[in-house]
Amino acid sequence: MSDTTERTATAFANPNIAFIKYWGNRDHELRIPASGSISMNLAGLETRTRVRFDSNLSADTLTLNGQPAAEAARARVARLLDRVREMAGTRARAEVVSANNFPTAAGIASSASAYAALALAASAAAGLALDEPALSRLARTGSGSACRSVPGGFVEWQAGTTHEDSYAFSIAPPDHWHLVDCVAVVSTRHKTTGSTHGHALAPTSPLQAARLEDAPRRLDICRQAILERDFEAFAEVVELDSNLMHAVMMTSSPRLLYWLPATLAVMRAVERWRAEGLSACYTIDAGPNVHVICLHEHHPEIVHRLKAIPGVEQVLTATPGGAARLLDEPAASNNPRSLQNLPGQYLRS
Amino acid sequence: MSDTTERTATAFANPNIAFIKYWGNRDHELRIPASGSISMNLAGLETRTRVRFDSNLSADTLTLNGQPAAEAARARVARLLDRVREMAGTRARAEVVSANNFPTAAGIASSASAYAALALAASAAAGLALDEPALSRLARTGSGSACRSVPGGFVEWQAGTTHEDSYAFSIAPPDHWHLVDCVAVVSTRHKTTGSTHGHALAPTSPLQAARLEDAPRRLDICRQAILERDFEAFAEVVELDSNLMHAVMMTSSPRLLYWLPATLAVMRAVERWRAEGLSACYTIDAGPNVHVICLHEHHPEIVHRLKAIPGVEQVLTATPGGAARLLDEPAASNNPRSLQNLPGQYLRS
Repeated sequence: MSDTTERTATAFANPNIAFIKYWGNRDHELRIPASGSISMNLAGLETRTRVRFDSNLSADTLTLNGQPAAEAARARVARLLDRVREMAGTRARAEVVSANNFPTAAGIASSASAYAALALAASAAAGLALDEPALSRLARTGSGSACRSVPGGFVEWQAGTTHEDSYAFSIAPPDHWHLVDCVAVVSTRHKTTGSTHGHALAPTSPLQAARLEDAPRRLDICRQAILERDFEAFAEVVELDSNLMHAVMMTSSPRLLYWLPATLAVMRAVERWRAEGLSACYTIDAGPNVHVICLHEHHPEIVHRLKAIPGVEQVLTATPGGAARLLDEPAASNNPRSLQNLPGQYLRS
Repeated sequence: MSDTTERTATAFANPNIAFIKYWGNRDHELRIPASGSISMNLAGLETRTRVRFDSNLSADTLTLNGQPAAEAARARVARLLDRVREMAGTRARAEVVSANNFPTAAGIASSASAYAALALAASAAAGLALDEPALSRLARTGSGSACRSVPGGFVEWQAGTTHEDSYAFSIAPPDHWHLVDCVAVVSTRHKTTGSTHGHALAPTSPLQAARLEDAPRRLDICRQAILERDFEAFAEVVELDSNLMHAVMMTSSPRLLYWLPATLAVMRAVERWRAEGLSACYTIDAGPNVHVICLHEHHPEIVHRLKAIPGVEQVLTATPGGAARLLDEPAASNNPRSLQNLPGQYLRS
């Protein structure tokens, strides 16, 4: 981009829900995980991010959901932009404008879609044409699970041991299996311990090493269950893996107890429903909300039942989503105000 | 007892609450545990058990809280009586009458006080004068944690590896530290998986080996904290240990999730209260009720606050209790109807 002073790209990415979880790093700086993970992208939930490199800017700026972002968030984005600048051989600073169509801190890992969209938009705006593994690696350096929001559908992140071999790839396309993620939102308050800090606490649990040692077995079972569309095997390993992560969290020092009473009410209800014959299982990220994964034909019933549980504030649903992708630039995209071209729901905070 | 055809003894024991938990056996038959544990006897909560050996009886009988017991319970008691008969060299069958002054399945391990009282009453009625370690061993064969209800006050069960070296002893008398156990009863329904079956499931969790490996460290910290009356250190290790046991339970196959929504509400409240300066911590056995252990001076406030938490049905309190002991026999004790001499609350079912 040495030949221009300004260049813009806009990208789009879905968040993802992990079936085999990422918790704990081998390398905190590069976010090389201590074990592999498997996830599904979530169609309908989206981050859109526009990056405009401009050699006249004196610093990177970040606007999130229509508001100037906090300095910590801006600095974290700037570190990813530094990587992009280094690859592209430029020193231009960037204006980054990003918005989600889903509530922040609703138990949806917005950092995953945010850094996947940022990696794609920033690299494209810088004139780089990164392949999928390279984009996945770049996204990973911003937020580990973001590497899984780069490829489409059902995705596996191979842990690897270096920056080069730690990236995600698709193991099945979105239409491979008609699962629905029904997110039972039991609290929209911000969690008290963010994931980045939490990952650093994982090794303080007496259980983390055992959890990691067993991870290859769970990855094999989960991958196979997805490929064979075997819901029973899938449900068992997904719930086990979620409980294993929370077991580590609640025994780390300090202990991290993310569950609320309503979290447990949903977990127990889902166990009952599956015993009654509904194909549904639960999985919970680093927060109190419960992702209830079910077969498409059961999802109206599941949503109906979830809404009846005291403490469940709302239920979001998502089907398997595609890969991160670039969006066509509107003609006025050089104008910072053109973010207003984003659909209304993207600008709600 | 070959010289008599009938002999009776009545014993009394408290249940106990474990601070470092027992979950998983090295030997299921003999209930040799996979790791040591530490507990406190609970004064005010009691089992009274009368054993009458009678050579005219054709089978052992068991009356629990005024009702004939189920066959499984009777057979389990008969197995302990078989051990006593073998030691005493008799073949007489026994009539066993036992009653608790606390609700069964209220999260209080009634099997601990029951088998401690049974071991003492049965051995005395058979004419044996067992010392404390021998009584503790005998009680253990009926219910593992019962070995801890034989000695008084604060008690440690050394795991051992054989019947001979697996027994409990007092590490401090009841008046050593003025703790109060405030039991927040959130459900009086029977738990779905009993402890005996649960112990057998422990090794199916990928986390159990790591939990056991770390046990000597926790035992040292807990023992030292009790001896030094260091509540902060005590609270940290007690909550960690409880979470470790439930981590194993919720990741065993099948998964055992004993917590209810109100369980979690109490756990989170106690964490908050301690952060505010109240000396209180939680510990949870194989059920949904929460034992909130606190310093004596804080217990009125703790009880008051616990009662205000939705889902808490009642709060029982107990102070450190003494050793299992024999009770003087009333003159009419040969008469099976004399169980009616037990105070009224012992005969409520």
